Amino acid sequence: MNQTLTFDQAVNLFKEPHRIFIAAHIMPDGDCIGSALGLTWALRKIGKTVTVTCHDHVSESFAFLPGLKELSAQVPTDEELLVFVDGSSADRYGAAFDPKLFGARPVLAIDHHATNENFAPLNFVDATRGSCAEIIFRFVRALDIPLDATIAQCLLTGIITDTLGFRTSNTSPDTLRIASALIEAGATIGGVVEQVFNQYSLPSLRLRGKVFSAAQLDGNILWAEVSQKDLRDFGITNNGAGGMINALLGVDAAQIAALFTEKESGKIDVSMRARPGYDVSGVAARLGGGGHKQAAGALLDGPLTSARERVLAELRKVV
Amino acid sequence: MNQTLTFDQAVNLFKEPHRIFIAAHIMPDGDCIGSALGLTWALRKIGKTVTVTCHDHVSESFAFLPGLKELSAQVPTDEELLVFVDGSSADRYGAAFDPKLFGARPVLAIDHHATNENFAPLNFVDATRGSCAEIIFRFVRALDIPLDATIAQCLLTGIITDTLGFRTSNTSPDTLRIASALIEAGATIGGVVEQVFNQYSLPSLRLRGKVFSAAQLDGNILWAEVSQKDLRDFGITNNGAGGMINALLGVDAAQIAALFTEKESGKIDVSMRARPGYDVSGVAARLGGGGHKQAAGALLDGPLTSARERVLAELRKVV
Repeated sequence: MNQTLTFDQAVNLFKEPHRIFIAAHIMPDGDCIGSALGLTWALRKIGKTVTVTCHDHVSESFAFLPGLKELSAQVPTDEELLVFVDGSSADRYGAAFDPKLFGARPVLAIDHHATNENFAPLNFVDATRGSCAEIIFRFVRALDIPLDATIAQCLLTGIITDTLGFRTSNTSPDTLRIASALIEAGATIGGVVEQVFNQYSLPSLRLRGKVFSAAQLDGNILWAEVSQKDLRDFGITNNGAGGMINALLGVDAAQIAALFTEKESGKIDVSMRARPGYDVSGVAARLGGGGHKQAAGALLDGPLTSARERVLAELRKVV
Repeated sequence: MNQTLTFDQAVNLFKEPHRIFIAAHIMPDGDCIGSALGLTWALRKIGKTVTVTCHDHVSESFAFLPGLKELSAQVPTDEELLVFVDGSSADRYGAAFDPKLFGARPVLAIDHHATNENFAPLNFVDATRGSCAEIIFRFVRALDIPLDATIAQCLLTGIITDTLGFRTSNTSPDTLRIASALIEAGATIGGVVEQVFNQYSLPSLRLRGKVFSAAQLDGNILWAEVSQKDLRDFGITNNGAGGMINALLGVDAAQIAALFTEKESGKIDVSMRARPGYDVSGVAARLGGGGHKQAAGALLDGPLTSARERVLAELRKVV
């Protein structure tokens, strides 16, 4: 029977073990990576031996975070505590989350997603937090681990990524106080912002141009699409969809934005964003995907037109 | 002989006077407006009578700030203290800055621009601050004026505008602590971000598309342009150039971005942005404009092609 823990109970789990296993989820974003690495460096600082893992490709764009290359597809071995960060369900961890491997060890999930399924034997979920890194910061403080520039940079990267640079509605006074403490400990905002938001190629900017030029408004839903042909024409492998979808939601008449990207497999990736007061997490869940109220997504069968009609039909019900 | 004041000297100027004149500069941005209105509401809270003015058109996009409609083109009359906020030189205030009208009253400029010319009889300039609103916050605190949601929203708007939403390199731990205090006092980040960064029309998004599609890289200078024909074709009066130029600087190969906009008069407005380590304020000054290291601009004679060549020639010297 899975349990939910209080903060103190969750913190206490870290005190005795010497060897700790930390897993980042698949398709790892900056919050997941920053949380996993921030926790890793903090625990090492108090003498723990930490294995930090991820069963998926990790983007080079986070190469500025120390330890990034350690994130590889490993499964638990002799560690005394297993920790799964920033994921809302077991299938986000690949082979790392395998109850057959758990034995009698404590297995803890730490997350901030409202859609978290309490999937681990032990769970600490705080859905009021805009980022998992804010929760990790609280753990670091509660364990009396002094911050250093490495820990701070990892955690600040998590916060900045998931709050879209302090722009989401769940950016709280505490978020800003934590960020302030992290900068005082040696983290820099500029570097993170440069890496997370301000880095795309000239072909990618021009692709944005093409996508924006053809954006369409359907009621108060703004949608746009990127085909495989577009990606080939512009010679692009990573389309920087995050920045694109956020720009689409900037249109004043739009309460919801949807961006459809045709994958090489022919599947259609749909990213959705909603202004405060609207909720796209339910639509994403109904389409077999997941996410938050303000940002969610799913992977659908193609072609583009049928995926688009299917999504727009669902979205029209929530606006 | 113009004087520079210490912070305490500047604060003390506000204690005695009952009637105070506050001027925002021409082409007022969110920091200027937020600083002027935040100071206005704070002083009214302690019983002062405040006239708040601006000798230029004030954008409707700040209509969410209480008092915006008060900002009109007035000159000093019987006020006992005149305050000029967020401007680096006298010519930024139109007819409001007229030494013939000053008489014996104290005339104070409060600013954060490194290029400030100490143009007023009394000057308090703190160029370490990312926004003028952070300085105004310090005045409000020093005068023991309790924050309320109105004052807080004005000042947070200033901070968010000038730090590009906590993204500039001069966003300090103190910036974030101040923002945290403002949110606790009732200001909301979401509303400001929505208004300042995330509001443009669908035609404006499509214009961005056209501009991005045609962006050009010259060494590590990325440039793009908007003609009067473009603006007419898309039916646009306000092109939201701020967002556009920031997106241009997101191109990884660009250290500097320049956006040329043809005005109705035929003049060419050039906006420039530089990554940390580069400085466009000198180029702007040589072209008769002004601004900060990372963000500056000027107004040049047309046509577009000659203005562009003139600016690119200057920029090539600094990269």
